Amino acid sequence: MPAASCPLCTPQDETLIWQDESCRVIQVDDPDYPGFCRVIWHDHVTEMSDLPSLEQQHLMSVVLATERALRALMKPDKINLASFGNQVPHLHWHVIPRYREDAHFPESIWGRRQRESSPGQAPEREILAHWITSILGHPGKPTGGTVV
Amino acid sequence: MPAASCPLCTPQDETLIWQDESCRVIQVDDPDYPGFCRVIWHDHVTEMSDLPSLEQQHLMSVVLATERALRALMKPDKINLASFGNQVPHLHWHVIPRYREDAHFPESIWGRRQRESSPGQAPEREILAHWITSILGHPGKPTGGTVV
Repeated sequence: MPAASCPLCTPQDETLIWQDESCRVIQVDDPDYPGFCRVIWHDHVTEMSDLPSLEQQHLMSVVLATERALRALMKPDKINLASFGNQVPHLHWHVIPRYREDAHFPESIWGRRQRESSPGQAPEREILAHWITSILGHPGKPTGGTVV
Repeated sequence: MPAASCPLCTPQDETLIWQDESCRVIQVDDPDYPGFCRVIWHDHVTEMSDLPSLEQQHLMSVVLATERALRALMKPDKINLASFGNQVPHLHWHVIPRYREDAHFPESIWGRRQRESSPGQAPEREILAHWITSILGHPGKPTGGTVV
């Protein structure tokens, strides 16, 4: 059930990349971090361990398909994954391509800024969507058997 | 194969909570964050998507069993999960119980400190180990079918 005032229950101005009946992948508009994606569970759930096992597996399969697609398209030095929800306690994952010369490396992007950076280009939305779809198969209901 | 000079390949002074043939859960010594655990894949692998699907599922089942055990024992306001590896590119997950009055809330623990804090007690190591074992079943080889 949607939670009143939760910005992830009633999304506005999201740049949608991919979705199925359970979750969606959006592009995060951060000029320092092209390719930064967020994977958001549609229902208002707070923690991963609030989900049944098959839904946990499905959500992680989408997170890791996004990771694989970003690695293939952007060749980052590292991928960072995080699920916090301290400010918005609605289950979502950050998937962030990182480079040694980016603004915060080797700190997390929530740490102290290390330098000015000259970020590259994010992949085209349609190309990223195509890769995620190819890795996951067609969007559909979670089966728990998605091959990552 | 262990990587030369990787501190997670050749662990020293770790406080081990639980392990099986694939990964281990250790207690992180951070006075601001009692209960902070790290789940470390034994082999020197960099990214989640470097693992086969069943091993990804097994690692996440251990991460989420740790989450469930910490929630049951510590009743945190939120759990934070993160896998960065920017400084040590050997696959590991941070599992952090968070409280509204902790040192950084609602920021990540890698963000700006918000206040002095008076952290509570970490659970006894043996009790946490017992909970993780109970949730996962007996330690053993990854099966991909572990119920979280």
